[in-house]
Amino acid sequence: MAKTNIIKGNAVIGQSGGPSAVINQSLVGVIETLKKSRQIPKIFGANHGVRGIVNNKYFDLRKVSAKELEIIAGTPASALGSSRDKPDEEYCQRIFENFKKNDVRYFFYIGGNDSADAARIVNDMAKASGYDLNCFHVPKTIDNDLRVTDHTPGYGSAARFVASAFAGEDRDNAALPGIKVSVVMGRDAGWLTASASLAKYCYGNECDENVGPHLVYVPEIAFDKEKFAADVMKAYKKFGRCLIAVSEGIRDAGGTPMAVSLVEAMGREIERDSHGNAQLSGSGALGDALSEYIKKAFGSQKVRVRADTYGYLQRSFAGYASVVDQAEARNCGRKAAELALSGCTDGTVVMVRKKSAKYGVTFERAELKDVARVTKPLDRKFINKAGNGITKAFADYALPLVGGLPRLGRLY
Amino acid sequence: MAKTNIIKGNAVIGQSGGPSAVINQSLVGVIETLKKSRQIPKIFGANHGVRGIVNNKYFDLRKVSAKELEIIAGTPASALGSSRDKPDEEYCQRIFENFKKNDVRYFFYIGGNDSADAARIVNDMAKASGYDLNCFHVPKTIDNDLRVTDHTPGYGSAARFVASAFAGEDRDNAALPGIKVSVVMGRDAGWLTASASLAKYCYGNECDENVGPHLVYVPEIAFDKEKFAADVMKAYKKFGRCLIAVSEGIRDAGGTPMAVSLVEAMGREIERDSHGNAQLSGSGALGDALSEYIKKAFGSQKVRVRADTYGYLQRSFAGYASVVDQAEARNCGRKAAELALSGCTDGTVVMVRKKSAKYGVTFERAELKDVARVTKPLDRKFINKAGNGITKAFADYALPLVGGLPRLGRLY
Repeated sequence: MAKTNIIKGNAVIGQSGGPSAVINQSLVGVIETLKKSRQIPKIFGANHGVRGIVNNKYFDLRKVSAKELEIIAGTPASALGSSRDKPDEEYCQRIFENFKKNDVRYFFYIGGNDSADAARIVNDMAKASGYDLNCFHVPKTIDNDLRVTDHTPGYGSAARFVASAFAGEDRDNAALPGIKVSVVMGRDAGWLTASASLAKYCYGNECDENVGPHLVYVPEIAFDKEKFAADVMKAYKKFGRCLIAVSEGIRDAGGTPMAVSLVEAMGREIERDSHGNAQLSGSGALGDALSEYIKKAFGSQKVRVRADTYGYLQRSFAGYASVVDQAEARNCGRKAAELALSGCTDGTVVMVRKKSAKYGVTFERAELKDVARVTKPLDRKFINKAGNGITKAFADYALPLVGGLPRLGRLY
Repeated sequence: MAKTNIIKGNAVIGQSGGPSAVINQSLVGVIETLKKSRQIPKIFGANHGVRGIVNNKYFDLRKVSAKELEIIAGTPASALGSSRDKPDEEYCQRIFENFKKNDVRYFFYIGGNDSADAARIVNDMAKASGYDLNCFHVPKTIDNDLRVTDHTPGYGSAARFVASAFAGEDRDNAALPGIKVSVVMGRDAGWLTASASLAKYCYGNECDENVGPHLVYVPEIAFDKEKFAADVMKAYKKFGRCLIAVSEGIRDAGGTPMAVSLVEAMGREIERDSHGNAQLSGSGALGDALSEYIKKAFGSQKVRVRADTYGYLQRSFAGYASVVDQAEARNCGRKAAELALSGCTDGTVVMVRKKSAKYGVTFERAELKDVARVTKPLDRKFINKAGNGITKAFADYALPLVGGLPRLGRLY
């Protein structure tokens, strides 16, 4: 539990993991709050996350004007540079050494569950050795898979991009009918893929089954390729076309990613990272494999099948962030800085949804250990019984986060 | 040449080819202008272009309210439905028969150069048999490859999407350095791929070589894979990262698409359409092949290489159209209807850029034969000497068309 401990010393801010459209809102939220304080002589920005800390590569963030900070807040991807390093105890020791050398008393790490874990380890080291360090995690992930918080900064903007993409894809597919597979990011959780279903809510009050996506597949439901083929054929027969949202992380009942089994079945190789995880993003392989599989399933019946993989645009497209997400990400950064400046020694910021009819959140402190490591899957109540679609309950949850979708019309 | 010929009769409007973000602006421009006239008892919308005409499948467009039309105007992809049919003489004869049966005296066909050709053939048939028919093509293509006109409706919005995508990709690539290949639409012309270079103009007056895309490859320059590998290695050494825009239509000196030769060299098959053309869109194959080729070129030097293929989002993403493009597409539709109603018997609409310092266009009539069939490649002056980048002259040409790009900031 946090104790009151107001200290004078320098601050380090870092950004970690995959970019988002609003991660710099959180960065600027921390900076602008710290700037107002006389307790913080220097505000260091770590170039490329924890790697910047151990290499002592810092930006002097007090020198960046308020005007320039505002522009950076609206810029996608980590302005400080990011890192995929997952620090172990030894790595965290080097971080801690750097902090002691630079008289760093405030540490803010903006990222997902791995970043929360890094902050937790550094925090424990400081506490164990009696070094005063106020250590805060600021949540960020387009995957929306952090525990405790109602949703994560970054998710609303990515969901807005995906929903608008599918809204356009559906009109495209209606204009030139065929079968279209579009692959959405999300290795372990289906939150972002589920947002494809929000495309159905671009037509006023109407929510018509003719409007796609007609099928949605998430990693939380074991993927059965025979059932998939049957679903597609049924939808194609019914609608004369079929738009399908597929998570890059779909896996079979044994847990093997389809990106591995389907692609390897085609005689191709899947790239793996140093942890042995299959590389799911940055390649069109899964989409192409599903496309070929559908063509085979239709046999002699000639169908037009196309696949797209949305890729990095989902996390870094410029100029289309959710205004709700932008404001919340900013406030998460501010809240972390306010907590630290008020003497709170550690924690993370979570958003708690108000029980009111009108959407709103409060920003609260939570324990680092409660968001570190373990992730949160898409709730089962948000997936339909057949396991191939998304419920209205999900739309009720997610629509307030995307800050408005385009209003569309159709003649048929 | 057009003659004065004001006649009473019904109108047919059709949409053809690949969707765009503003093709419905042109549709509504035609409808709202025709609606004001008493010469036109019925305004028919052909469901799926020429196919709808020969199948006599029409929407009654006088019944659609002005409010609903406005919503449809802002909706991407062809609201009437589209078609890939390229009508020959016999097909056009069937169109002409349907027009006679329905007393159609006004025909508007919204599409690219193939649509202009279909309109030309139908027009010639009507004129040859002494049947009064005012026949207009309304330009549409994200490829920007129509002759005579300064640019085409649909291009500005697609270019805005691609520029914003690369602006975000560049920040993403700076945050997590590596080599990133992103494949852009455009089978024969590099106009849309060139718009990736506009991402460099999101930083106020500054245009820094550190900002990507660092390399751009278009179909107008013969693609040499050894030179490509050398370019990438040089850029990677210089910037510590490399963002590359590649047209799906890049081809070698012999004219063979790299999507065919590179992919087939990997032992994979390329799908072909009924005309024998290789299927370039709706698959991640070229991007993945270039990515593997780069990895091989770097040999034992470990580099992070990723590829994305932007796919259909470029033509149908909802909610991110260029406001300039929207207004121009609307006016092209209006102009075609005004010309037809004023007694002009045939033609197409072209945009002529004003010579003034402030951007603007006038809408003029041109002959159908002058935009039919032959397409317009990217001007050589818009490509750098090395054939791997885009010039400032292109930005001067294209920036006014995208209706504003996000303003971005960076710390390094």
